[in-house]
Amino acid sequence: MKIIGEKINGTRKRVARAIAERDADFIRNLAQKQAEAGAAWLDVNAGTHPSREADDLIWLIETIQAVVATPLCLDSANPAALAVAIKAVNKTPMINSISGEPERLAGILPLVAEHGCQVIALAMDAKKIPETVDGRVAVVEAVLGQTRRAGVPDSHIYVDPLAMTIGTNIQSGMIACDTIRTVHRAYPEIHFTVGLSNISFGLPARSYINRAFLTLALAAGLDSAILDPLDRELGAAILAAELVLGRDRHCLNYTRAYRAGMFESTQT
Amino acid sequence: MKIIGEKINGTRKRVARAIAERDADFIRNLAQKQAEAGAAWLDVNAGTHPSREADDLIWLIETIQAVVATPLCLDSANPAALAVAIKAVNKTPMINSISGEPERLAGILPLVAEHGCQVIALAMDAKKIPETVDGRVAVVEAVLGQTRRAGVPDSHIYVDPLAMTIGTNIQSGMIACDTIRTVHRAYPEIHFTVGLSNISFGLPARSYINRAFLTLALAAGLDSAILDPLDRELGAAILAAELVLGRDRHCLNYTRAYRAGMFESTQT
Repeated sequence: MKIIGEKINGTRKRVARAIAERDADFIRNLAQKQAEAGAAWLDVNAGTHPSREADDLIWLIETIQAVVATPLCLDSANPAALAVAIKAVNKTPMINSISGEPERLAGILPLVAEHGCQVIALAMDAKKIPETVDGRVAVVEAVLGQTRRAGVPDSHIYVDPLAMTIGTNIQSGMIACDTIRTVHRAYPEIHFTVGLSNISFGLPARSYINRAFLTLALAAGLDSAILDPLDRELGAAILAAELVLGRDRHCLNYTRAYRAGMFESTQT
Repeated sequence: MKIIGEKINGTRKRVARAIAERDADFIRNLAQKQAEAGAAWLDVNAGTHPSREADDLIWLIETIQAVVATPLCLDSANPAALAVAIKAVNKTPMINSISGEPERLAGILPLVAEHGCQVIALAMDAKKIPETVDGRVAVVEAVLGQTRRAGVPDSHIYVDPLAMTIGTNIQSGMIACDTIRTVHRAYPEIHFTVGLSNISFGLPARSYINRAFLTLALAAGLDSAILDPLDRELGAAILAAELVLGRDRHCLNYTRAYRAGMFESTQT
């Protein structure tokens, strides 16, 4: 599974402060640690100040690229900021995100098509998140109609089924997994990702819930997730899930991680 | 999920010693701790000494029943020992186990039918464990033909799909899960159980593998397992899996376990 490192996110207070104060050391450290932990992309979210977002994104991108070569995942709903930021990246970035919202699609999809980006497509429509699997699949199919018309190959799309908290709907985890399974059957080239931590929002002992959900979503077809690559217990759970799912030939990844000390805190 | 406590097993050295020395304190302690931890049954295995097995089983049963009311799961392949032991139990026991082996079926199935026991049915045939899902399902179907003819209701059967180690066949976990799924669809009244720890035999950091497998097997339809009820991390993983699978209404079991301190070592 490919990890999109979540830590450079300006909606978090500490990161917002680092952005406001141009604290490059803090950002560089987050970038390096996530890259070392094996993140395939680093999410870059400058926060939600429309007037500053483009400048802040550029500063983040340049700061990160000065220390790591990991591709970036530009996280914004603002087409103008993305259009500027996309020119500052060294490697073709992933874009986070489009959805069924017409304005967002109209603003962001042309950038994705023009620059050959991978893109996260949320299973929501004009700010509404369908409550049923059928509803989410219908939104995804509508978005895929648009991405195909725009010439974006299915293999560049990462569908996010949207993991809402189980605290308000006990079926949230299964709705997300079943959305993945259904889209996966109909569109075999499509990838899947998910913002992991929402699933346990408002509940206690969240890490257990996150790990169980990730294990079940991997079985459903998830092949990427936005999460904290520094969370070793979560990383170990991912390796174990891939092993049990029969996706780790000769147990090589698992035994290598063991020898690298990944499971140190665990009894064997 | 219902837990069959695995700890009173005479094939383990320390338990074998306690049996040989008639160390009732040691056995009583294992019984009480597993019962307190919520085991639905306590497995009772006296080891594999044919000449002593019946006497040892009786002693174990009387020792355990002196301190807990939890039903027992009599674990033996020896019909003569089971026939004697079954008369010593206070509550109708589960029998562990029958399989497709004709001799074992002929010896044990009549006891199961006569006493109205629940029984574990292994997906193996005359000492051979089929390597494919189809092979395991065929064995299970043959056994179910026999149990039905003997008048044992499907709801008394706990099919064990047999979790072999992933160390020698990377598909072992998926073969077990797919066997559960296939039998579950065809026989909706049948229960499922599994001896958990075999799945990770010979591999490092076994607890992660056991937890991932249990999570995926629960999704497939597993509703019981033979495991260590004192393993808190495993218990937490089970609660989290049932929550994410949408089987914990209003998150009550999960939040209750949290308040009881089940997740103490975890950051929320």
